[in-house]
Amino acid sequence: MRNLCLILSYDGADFQGWQRQPSAPTVQASVEEALRRVTGERVALHGSGRTDAGVHALRQAANFKCESPIPVESLCRALNHALPPAVRVLEAREVAPQFDARRSALAKTYIYRMLTTPICPPFLARYVCHCPYALDYDAMARAARLLEGRHDFTSFAAAEGVNRLRRRAGLMAGKAPELSSPQLVHPDAAAVRSLFSSRMIRRKTTGMLVYRVRGSGFLQYMVRNIAGTLMEVGRGAMPPERIPEILAARDRRRAGPSAPPQGLWLVNVEYEWDGAGE
Amino acid sequence: MRNLCLILSYDGADFQGWQRQPSAPTVQASVEEALRRVTGERVALHGSGRTDAGVHALRQAANFKCESPIPVESLCRALNHALPPAVRVLEAREVAPQFDARRSALAKTYIYRMLTTPICPPFLARYVCHCPYALDYDAMARAARLLEGRHDFTSFAAAEGVNRLRRRAGLMAGKAPELSSPQLVHPDAAAVRSLFSSRMIRRKTTGMLVYRVRGSGFLQYMVRNIAGTLMEVGRGAMPPERIPEILAARDRRRAGPSAPPQGLWLVNVEYEWDGAGE
Repeated sequence: MRNLCLILSYDGADFQGWQRQPSAPTVQASVEEALRRVTGERVALHGSGRTDAGVHALRQAANFKCESPIPVESLCRALNHALPPAVRVLEAREVAPQFDARRSALAKTYIYRMLTTPICPPFLARYVCHCPYALDYDAMARAARLLEGRHDFTSFAAAEGVNRLRRRAGLMAGKAPELSSPQLVHPDAAAVRSLFSSRMIRRKTTGMLVYRVRGSGFLQYMVRNIAGTLMEVGRGAMPPERIPEILAARDRRRAGPSAPPQGLWLVNVEYEWDGAGE
Repeated sequence: MRNLCLILSYDGADFQGWQRQPSAPTVQASVEEALRRVTGERVALHGSGRTDAGVHALRQAANFKCESPIPVESLCRALNHALPPAVRVLEAREVAPQFDARRSALAKTYIYRMLTTPICPPFLARYVCHCPYALDYDAMARAARLLEGRHDFTSFAAAEGVNRLRRRAGLMAGKAPELSSPQLVHPDAAAVRSLFSSRMIRRKTTGMLVYRVRGSGFLQYMVRNIAGTLMEVGRGAMPPERIPEILAARDRRRAGPSAPPQGLWLVNVEYEWDGAGE
């Protein structure tokens, strides 16, 4: 059985998110259907993580197992022929049997794009969050930096997402956590993530502000909730110094609102490609 | 009665072209509906010309008459609030009573974008023509230059479009041409246009080839038929020197096929804004 990893790029505006659903177009379902046509096998595609409806990907990773002996270059070409133009396979590669796009990921990078011009060009409406008002870049940059490091991000997570992770780790409903992994000793470990870099970038000529974040992993809605909080800071509704308090509170209600999906882009997923990292 | 001109930008992928249709979303219908909501009047919007389904506009112009005293800045803001994000009003201005967006136009500029990379990014699929093969830029550039000047463009027009223009000029069905306008003396004057500039531009880092053309006016499908012919030249299927013969033949079958709509962008329409040019 071969294990193959695809690097995918997609325009999220055309899909109801990554995950397969009974009767809505999703990226996972589109690629699985294309794989079925190309390999003749029903395969299950495992993404590095889900993306929500409207969220874009420059380089999403996903792996699947198959028997087909098709060379990776031919697979790539055949899939792009079978897929709608809104999804492209940029690369296909053979990976170690134990490789798993989600568990083997070492880091992910996202950007969140905010356009501050008075009018949003129609060609950007699907790809940015339009904020037609002054945003204090310096305050946002300070706030963004305060998120770097290892923190409990409960305040920036979808409440349901954190609960799901805690159930998975046996941390809820009175059950004692399973202590097999040292990370799970603390009852809130399920929401602990490391942000290696969390920065604002300003593109003055175009009026675009970009939040760029690279981290060990992200909770559901985490980047959108951070972006929404940074916009509150940019509007002057919250001082940047509030960030450490919000993190410490571990309370979703303390952070800003969730920013809309179309500004969010999954930029890259990093792996030890030879499998040595696992 | 005021005469107002709107400068519009739109993503043609979301519309069945410019012109109002009984049951399909069109740019003209969207803007007329927004005008009705904003001014409370049923107005007819007159574009500088039609664009086909899938064709984009950076600066299309269109005028309408109304009684509403709404200031142009407020009109602009209110229309953008009422319109879908795929259409934006960039400017609104009061124009002379005799101004007509089509008849008053002095020149129009279009670009046609061809992407030559092996894979078309999903974010460009709506906005370029994907040509994943080598195109001979130098040959295309020579062919493009040979179209500059005043020519009969029958070979590059939709046959039906030319016939319509000839009927309008009384040049068909045995009727003698009406000789009121010196332009119409020659029986083929209906298809005569001046291209002030017709050039290829190469963006090496992105693999994008752009055909840019500025002219007195354009026949239906003319830019797409020119682009399709330039692609034939680029693929080596036709020498650039064939262009003068194609023009002289006045036969649509001599030129190349029509290029797909999504590569075409109306860039600008030029006017003597004070009305002195009329």
